[in-house]
Amino acid sequence: MKEATPNNSPKKVSQILMLLHFLLFQVYNLITKNLTSFFSSLIKEEKKEEESNEELLPPQPPPRNLDEVEESNEKLLTPPPPRNLDEVEAILGYEFKNKYLLEHAFTHTTYNKNFSFERLELLGDAVLNMLVTKEQFFLYQDLGPGQLTRLRAANVDTEKLARVAIKHEFHHYLRHNKPLLHKKINIFMEEILEYPLHSNGLVEVPKTLADIVESIIGAVFIDCGNSVETVWRIFKSILEPLIDPNTLKTHPVVELHEVCQKKNKKVKFVDLWEKSRTFLVLIDNQLVGKGIHDSRKDIVQNRAAKNALDNIGKVLKL
Amino acid sequence: MKEATPNNSPKKVSQILMLLHFLLFQVYNLITKNLTSFFSSLIKEEKKEEESNEELLPPQPPPRNLDEVEESNEKLLTPPPPRNLDEVEAILGYEFKNKYLLEHAFTHTTYNKNFSFERLELLGDAVLNMLVTKEQFFLYQDLGPGQLTRLRAANVDTEKLARVAIKHEFHHYLRHNKPLLHKKINIFMEEILEYPLHSNGLVEVPKTLADIVESIIGAVFIDCGNSVETVWRIFKSILEPLIDPNTLKTHPVVELHEVCQKKNKKVKFVDLWEKSRTFLVLIDNQLVGKGIHDSRKDIVQNRAAKNALDNIGKVLKL
Repeated sequence: MKEATPNNSPKKVSQILMLLHFLLFQVYNLITKNLTSFFSSLIKEEKKEEESNEELLPPQPPPRNLDEVEESNEKLLTPPPPRNLDEVEAILGYEFKNKYLLEHAFTHTTYNKNFSFERLELLGDAVLNMLVTKEQFFLYQDLGPGQLTRLRAANVDTEKLARVAIKHEFHHYLRHNKPLLHKKINIFMEEILEYPLHSNGLVEVPKTLADIVESIIGAVFIDCGNSVETVWRIFKSILEPLIDPNTLKTHPVVELHEVCQKKNKKVKFVDLWEKSRTFLVLIDNQLVGKGIHDSRKDIVQNRAAKNALDNIGKVLKL
Repeated sequence: MKEATPNNSPKKVSQILMLLHFLLFQVYNLITKNLTSFFSSLIKEEKKEEESNEELLPPQPPPRNLDEVEESNEKLLTPPPPRNLDEVEAILGYEFKNKYLLEHAFTHTTYNKNFSFERLELLGDAVLNMLVTKEQFFLYQDLGPGQLTRLRAANVDTEKLARVAIKHEFHHYLRHNKPLLHKKINIFMEEILEYPLHSNGLVEVPKTLADIVESIIGAVFIDCGNSVETVWRIFKSILEPLIDPNTLKTHPVVELHEVCQKKNKKVKFVDLWEKSRTFLVLIDNQLVGKGIHDSRKDIVQNRAAKNALDNIGKVLKL
């Protein structure tokens, strides 16, 4: 330092030192700025692409919000009192020897935590799972284990069973104190109109609806003396329409991956859930689909995949 | 720039410019170095802690490696030919009407992909699940749905069923072409000696062992005309010792979280799987346990939790 600092022109040296100071500051700024922009470049790129592709995407419905529903539809707010359980016996075509079991099957833990349907639900789930597996094992002898597993899953999953509950109006008999359940059921009933058989993860399902179906199965199983044959005789028609190999649809995320693999295209999901309740689907780095705000992350991803499948031909000219 | 560069002493200016150049380079180095060290500081800190706590941890056995086993134990390499299936009927105490079903149940897809046990396994799994759920539903009337679910899971999970296969030597009858299966089974048999009832995720389980038990159940179910009662009569004793509420152990990861919550300690798993096949357990930022190299990530995490539970009193003086 000393050698390089000439003593004969102190004013100039001072100027140079100031310049040095300034330059160092600029360099520091430049480096930190570059690093910041480097770290945020991916997000920005996605955003830019999103904007430039905006017109390609069909308009999406505004996000459903329970508060809005509350304001717009007062009657949804007050669930009617549960109906008389005798009617359930007529629906099932089965008269309970032990009426206590029937009541048990329709009591949610919010209504009576010592007398809720959770244990019956566990039992009914196992019985149903066995019966559907058995039915399809013999019915579709040529189906491989993978397909058989998927078929079984589609017929005993939460959405399928919730549809069964709605179809036979089981929810009207439920004893519960879940303030939002009635509204959620109404939204579900509205949304499934779009998907006659199964949405494959595109709608939010009130789990309690599926639980009742399982608990009723558990209750009948006990009441009839553990006869799986009796349970199947009663529930085979209740569960209709069962999904078969022809009506079984692929899950949209799986289907999108399959389509892209076949066409040798690279598919990428951009998870913006935390930031904006959004998923984007990029295919070969081009925005092809998006799913927006909803209450559950997986549903948004499924909707993004579905949207991408709807747009893929248009955007990428496959 | 021009204003600050005096013309009257070009040599000195040149010297200053060189200095400037050098200083900028140093600043650049300093900044990037700091950033690098900032980003790697967490890992280093963990490492340091690991070293300083080394003596607190009991010595762990060297990682198992199939190649080592191969060298040290030649006889493990050549599996004997599958035994005569008639013996299985004696083990089960059940004579098959349809011997083809029995053969089917013991044929792995590597032996005959058009005649493998996978579909039978799917059916047997559903039947077993139902039977165990039913048995425990009536046996433990006071058990809540959560406990009942855990109890069921422990009795039908892969490790439990693999133990059943070993106990009754079902693996000797398997027709397969899986070169490593025989060795893996031998390691499994050795490792479970340490855990008489269930390891709760501390050992690696050859899934095929569990599959055979399920496929045998599926085969018996079909052969006896779909009678769940017959299946249970045969398999109730085969499945012994069943885990009951008293012998049901908590999963080590869950147990560690529970212990720490009770003592108001913060537990943190450090996942170094990608780097060194290791999991560390820090409790209140102190290293208390670690699990090392194994073939499956979840097992290493479980072992780390188990190790932490073993050490927790010693290290933290709880």
